[in-house]
This record gives sequence, C-alpha cells and structure tokens, in this order.
Amino acid sequence: MKIGKVIGKVVSTRKEGNVEGLPILVVSYLDEKLSDTGRSAACIDTVNAGDGDIVLLCASSSARMTAKTTNVATDNTIVGIIDSVFAGSSFVYQKSKT
Amino acid sequence: MKIGKVIGKVVSTRKEGNVEGLPILVVSYLDEKLSDTGRSAACIDTVNAGDGDIVLLCASSSARMTAKTTNVATDNTIVGIIDSVFAGSSFVYQKSKT
Amino acid sequence: MKIGKVIGKVVSTRKEGNVEGLPILVVSYLDEKLSDTGRSAACIDTVNAGDGDIVLLCASSSARMTAKTTNVATDNTIVGIIDSVFAGSSFVYQKSKT
Amino acid sequence: MKIGKVIGKVVSTRKEGNVEGLPILVVSYLDEKLSDTGRSAACIDTVNAGDGDIVLLCASSSARMTAKTTNVATDNTIVGIIDSVFAGSSFVYQKSKT
Amino acid sequence: MKIGKVIGKVVSTRKEGNVEGLPILVVSYLDEKLSDTGRSAACIDTVNAGDGDIVLLCASSSARMTAKTTNVATDNTIVGIIDSVFAGSSFVYQKSKT
Repeated sequence: MKIGKVIGKVVSTRKEGNVEGLPILVVSYLDEKLSDTGRSAACIDTVNAGDGDIVLLCASSSARMTAKTTNVATDNTIVGIIDSVFAGSSFVYQKSKT
Repeated sequence: MKIGKVIGKVVSTRKEGNVEGLPILVVSYLDEKLSDTGRSAACIDTVNAGDGDIVLLCASSSARMTAKTTNVATDNTIVGIIDSVFAGSSFVYQKSKT
Repeated sequence: MKIGKVIGKVVSTRKEGNVEGLPILVVSYLDEKLSDTGRSAACIDTVNAGDGDIVLLCASSSARMTAKTTNVATDNTIVGIIDSVFAGSSFVYQKSKT
Repeated sequence: MKIGKVIGKVVSTRKEGNVEGLPILVVSYLDEKLSDTGRSAACIDTVNAGDGDIVLLCASSSARMTAKTTNVATDNTIVGIIDSVFAGSSFVYQKSKT
Repeated sequence: MKIGKVIGKVVSTRKEGNVEGLPILVVSYLDEKLSDTGRSAACIDTVNAGDGDIVLLCASSSARMTAKTTNVATDNTIVGIIDSVFAGSSFVYQKSKT
C-alpha cells in the first residue's frame, strides 16, 4: 500500500462502474518520511477521509476488497485513516487529537 | 484512478478481446493541478467522451468493472467525465456549460 | 492500453504457462505521437502482427481476455493491429495500404 | 517479488478491507545488491517480521495468496523473511544468527 | 512480459504463500538489445533456470498461470528460458549450445 494525503476531490456526474455515492478524493503520495513525492491519484474513499488526512491507499484488484468497493471500477481505494507512522520506535507522524 | 484529457483516437479493424464497437481514445495523463504529465495511454471509452474532455481513468482488472467492459481486453477504461476538480475548497477545474 | 511497434521476436523452447504455439514478439512502446519511448516488452501476439506493425497492447490480467490467451501466462498481449491514430481530427498515423 | 527492509510501521484504527489484526509495516525497497532504492511502501506482514529484517514482498493480486490475506485489501504483502541473498555463488547477504 | 538474466538467488525459510520447494531467483531486467536496465526482481522459477540464463518473466496475476504457481504468492514468475532474440531477422541473442 501507499501512504497519501488528501488534497482535493473530483466530481463526476456521467460515470460508469458502480461508483455512485462513493466520494472520489485527490490524494498526493507521500514517502516513508511523509514528504510529498510529487505524484497523485484520484481514489475512492471508503473511510470518510477529509482534507489533509493522512491515509492508506490500496491499489490493483485489491482496491475492490472492501465492503463498499466490491464490483466497483476502482484501481485505488482509501482503505484507512492513519493515526501514526513510526520509523523504528520514533514517531514520524501522529494525528492531532482535535 | 488517474485524471486525463482526451486528445485523440485509435482505429483498429483487426483486433481480439471483445472490443468491437467500443471507442479507443488517446488520453494524456494530468496531475492534480490538471497539468500534462507527458504520459499517455489508449483507453476504452464507456461514457461517450469527446475531444478535450477531462476524464476519470480506471486501470488494472478494475478496468473491466463496467457494464460495457466485462470480459473485454482493456487495462485502462474511461469510467467518468469529470465536472470539477477541487484542491481543498477551491476549483482547480470546472467543466464549461456549453 | 499502450501503442507499440513490433521490432523483433523471442524464441523459447523450454517454457511453462500454456504459451505453446503463440508467437512472442518484441514491441517498443510509442507515445501518442508515435515516437519511441525507449521502453519495450515481450508480448504474446493474437492478431498475426508482423515486423514494423503498429499495435495495441493490453497488460495486466486483461492480457488474458482474448480467445487465444485464456489461462495463458501473459502479462502483455497484442490485441489489435492499428490502422490509424488521430490527434483531434488530424492523422498522426495511417497504415499504408500495401 | 521485491526485496525490502523493514524500517517502520503504520497504525490505523479507522480502516476497511479485513485488515484487522494484521501489522502494517513500512518497507524500503532494496536492489539486488541490497542497496536502498529510495522507494518504499506500506505492507501487510504475514511472517512476524521485525525492524531491520530483510524481507520478500509480493504485490498485485498475489498479495492475497497467503492464508492470512485472502480477501484482505492488500496490494503488497511481506511473504517471507530472507535468510540469504546470493549473486552467483557469492553471498550478498546472510542473516546474522542471534 | 520482460526479458531478464538470472544473476542470483534468495533463500528464505520462514515464508507464506505456498512457495515451498520453488526456487526464488534474482533476475536483472534487460531491454530489447539485452542490455541491463539497472532494475531487478526476485522471481519464482518454474523452468529450472540457472545462473546467466536469459529468461522470460511474467508478472501480475498471470504469474500464477503455470502448473507450479497456481495459488502461489508470486507476482513475477520465470516462465521460459529464451533460446534466441531477434531484431527483425537479425539475431540479438542466441543461446550457446553447450
């Protein structure tokens, strides 16, 4: 999986592939230090992610392995909101408790 | 998924893989700011996209997860026409109403 | 899918994966202007493509979505011979009628 | 498959895709000489890997081909802990016996 | 598929995914001229390939499309030993008969 940050969204009314009702978010890929890699993707959201959230992305056919995305035309799905990332035993990131 | 722009089409009469009757469009990949990335692909169109349309692309086995592409030899399908793209709450793109 | 040009072939007698009798061609990837991208692959041919032909390539599990490649160990299949490529309404390529 | 080194972990409480109870480790990709390639991924661990372990990674739909990851939303799974890597008959790496 | 050269092997005793008894070889990717591309992968061997052999690699879910790799956690399988590679009608490579 990849680590990403939610930076926007996509709205599409004319679409195929059983994606009705599922948000399509724009996510930038982060590296293991949570630095921006300069790459991004449009991802189906299954966890109610919001702008700025650090998220876990699942690609390929496994993008369909959630209750909401079975039979959905998605090749990249947000499957988790990340609470923390560690390098060894040190925090790289900890979600603020607000 | 990826965001792309329709820039052309491919015509092929001798072909396999149940693609008869489905348009094959040339799409250039755009980044989250809708800037051209310099990469492109030939994609099966399921939404009647036209030249210049900003579209949503679905790759891998999920490219077959539309009513028109079940059992079709496509690894990249246009699954939506994009109306708008947001970065946070600001418009990056809004389809002109013409 | 990707657009490619047939530039060679591979011969293998000791092989697995139900590829017996299917030609394995070397194909260089072309971009939307049909310029060489410097990348290439070995692809199973299902359309009797020949040297110099401009072809349509289908990768991932969809490479098995032709009558000849069901259950075949191919991750990249030539699924069409391209007659013409358009950028908007202008020809980028037209197969010579010889 | 790819060779990687475990360098951290990801904690996520709000998640989808049947990943409950499976560790998500951060792994940096290594080349054939076990040099860092600068790329990394978040991977589901099925072999109790620990920090610093050299591991074998399996991506795509095959990431679900372990007893623990059937139906799991993973596109990259740690499927083995590597004991040694050879270049020809010379050791590139041998796990220390501690 | 990709063309590769066997340059080493991986030994792993603690592993998942039904790979018991299948060799895991280190393969460097070659281009259409059989020049090293600088990239490599660990691949399951189904054809008894040896050091220095030029081989055919099959990735993605098709890596499981051999009798030995059904249900195996492999995303890259050696599916053939290459005898010769042609560019047009000229030899790029011919396996020595020893």
